[in-house]
Amino acid sequence: MSFTQPLLEGNRLVLARLLTQVENDSPGARDALVELFPHTGRAHLIGVTGAPGTGKSSLVNQLALGYRRKANKKVAIVAVDPSSPFTGGAVLGDRVRMRDLSGDEGVFIRSMAARGSLGGIAQKTASLVQVFDAAGYEIIIIETVGAGQSEVDVARLAHTTIVVEAPGLGDEIQAIKAGILEIADVLVINKADRPGVENTERALRSTLELAHPTQRIFRHHGKTMEVSAPATDRDLWIPLIIKTVATEGKGIDELIEAIAKHAVHLQRSGDRAARDRARLESEMEALLQEALMNRFMEDMPHENYEEILGNVVNRNLSPYEAVKLLMNGTPK
Amino acid sequence: MSFTQPLLEGNRLVLARLLTQVENDSPGARDALVELFPHTGRAHLIGVTGAPGTGKSSLVNQLALGYRRKANKKVAIVAVDPSSPFTGGAVLGDRVRMRDLSGDEGVFIRSMAARGSLGGIAQKTASLVQVFDAAGYEIIIIETVGAGQSEVDVARLAHTTIVVEAPGLGDEIQAIKAGILEIADVLVINKADRPGVENTERALRSTLELAHPTQRIFRHHGKTMEVSAPATDRDLWIPLIIKTVATEGKGIDELIEAIAKHAVHLQRSGDRAARDRARLESEMEALLQEALMNRFMEDMPHENYEEILGNVVNRNLSPYEAVKLLMNGTPK
Repeated sequence: MSFTQPLLEGNRLVLARLLTQVENDSPGARDALVELFPHTGRAHLIGVTGAPGTGKSSLVNQLALGYRRKANKKVAIVAVDPSSPFTGGAVLGDRVRMRDLSGDEGVFIRSMAARGSLGGIAQKTASLVQVFDAAGYEIIIIETVGAGQSEVDVARLAHTTIVVEAPGLGDEIQAIKAGILEIADVLVINKADRPGVENTERALRSTLELAHPTQRIFRHHGKTMEVSAPATDRDLWIPLIIKTVATEGKGIDELIEAIAKHAVHLQRSGDRAARDRARLESEMEALLQEALMNRFMEDMPHENYEEILGNVVNRNLSPYEAVKLLMNGTPK
Repeated sequence: MSFTQPLLEGNRLVLARLLTQVENDSPGARDALVELFPHTGRAHLIGVTGAPGTGKSSLVNQLALGYRRKANKKVAIVAVDPSSPFTGGAVLGDRVRMRDLSGDEGVFIRSMAARGSLGGIAQKTASLVQVFDAAGYEIIIIETVGAGQSEVDVARLAHTTIVVEAPGLGDEIQAIKAGILEIADVLVINKADRPGVENTERALRSTLELAHPTQRIFRHHGKTMEVSAPATDRDLWIPLIIKTVATEGKGIDELIEAIAKHAVHLQRSGDRAARDRARLESEMEALLQEALMNRFMEDMPHENYEEILGNVVNRNLSPYEAVKLLMNGTPK
């Protein structure tokens, strides 16, 4: 039975079943993704990342509510929790969400407690997002639980990446920020009713100025040359800083406004097409890598592989030498 | 010039230069790694991970100091900060370290602000560790900055994985713990002079009991069968919980003791060999994947690749179909 028609017509049960199949990489899931692919590319993808304790989940809830009430958009939330060993690991978050969003047919929340390789997680997230996109969800929020590199990579799948901060989280978290800030299109200071919000904002602004100088400076043969700002500032996006108190719904309208501005910028500058292309290319590359590895292992006699690995374990052969041997042992 | 001899003789300048070459993947770095590989396999690798705010870096410092003073071991610290966009991104941490550890020839600290793919980070970390191992560092501590899946994967490279917790970090962090706990050989509750330490310990113990029941329970065709504990409990390692106040050096001796116990367990149970094998196999696989991809891209005419990618971007071809085309277009 084809998933496509009922999915396009908004059948939630079919949607839920397909999401599960995609998450488990069941037979049939790939065929369904192939069938659905021509129907994708319409949704606006929003990635939300940030350190634990920033109130990210409440913010995502409120954002979803805002899109429902203000713009009547269909909203999907994909909550990626790669560190959870349990399926349904985001249960607590989901329960809180249910209270506000339950019974609303225009919202669909999916937690993915996927483990395993990072490549696998990013790939599955991309597939889940494609299913929601084909199913007509106009806003797809990708929320990550951790605050490491893989979470950043997942959030990067989006058109608009939101990095959530909060006042008073301490120095170690400040240090992490520098790297995460680089990917932010919109910065949210949540819990903005807390003391220290001015300090947080000041610190963010000065880091942003470092990362996005209005005048670009190139170093050329050891000399510093100042180059004037780009001819049109259409091409330049300076991340917006929005203060929110998610638990009270404050600042959510401003956040939705900021995301809308960024969407306009993406269209005008051609960045939306560029981001889509980069995302699809990296998805294609990951699949290609997997296919190449599978073909290689099928062609390689298991005993040969084990023998070479054994020699590495015994330190008779370095991993580099082992790979050379393996590569020469297989028909080119 | 060969690196090997001066490196084995403890030349720090040569060591520093080789580490940089390995980090940059410079020409010659791979040859050096091949040459050094037979000299590896002696060090005890300790991975340290945990959420921001737990005082991980202070703990690692104190651990290094402890190994110097108590056991006179040569200690290397590899601080992996994948979220830092700046080389030397861990500068603050390093400066704090310098105060305690500077001038000690038996300690070498290396920050890696590497970015890029997770596979790349884990692979480079593994290579840096091999260089230190060959250079005679007996204790190699791999410290990660973030608290996400990639950081967990990096910490997993080790023989003994330490997960650092601290009282009162809030619920969201508790949720992350479940996944990270699974990989812990030793659990440290740092900042143990803070209020709430009993609650943290109780929570950890109950999660541990879920993860490591003294009696294993198998589910078989829907029925629950209790199976008695393994015949020898040599094979069973139940993670130790150690309380520390790193800033005052408290609990460090106990932590070193716990790591030593775990090292004995690893030897007796055969787990050390199993972990080494798994680590080397995954390193070999990563290199193999890279080599396969490189060979494929060399054989593939660039225009063909671009044309197929263009069709994906236009939604004429799904990524799966694209990979099929790519795979058939290349000689098997």
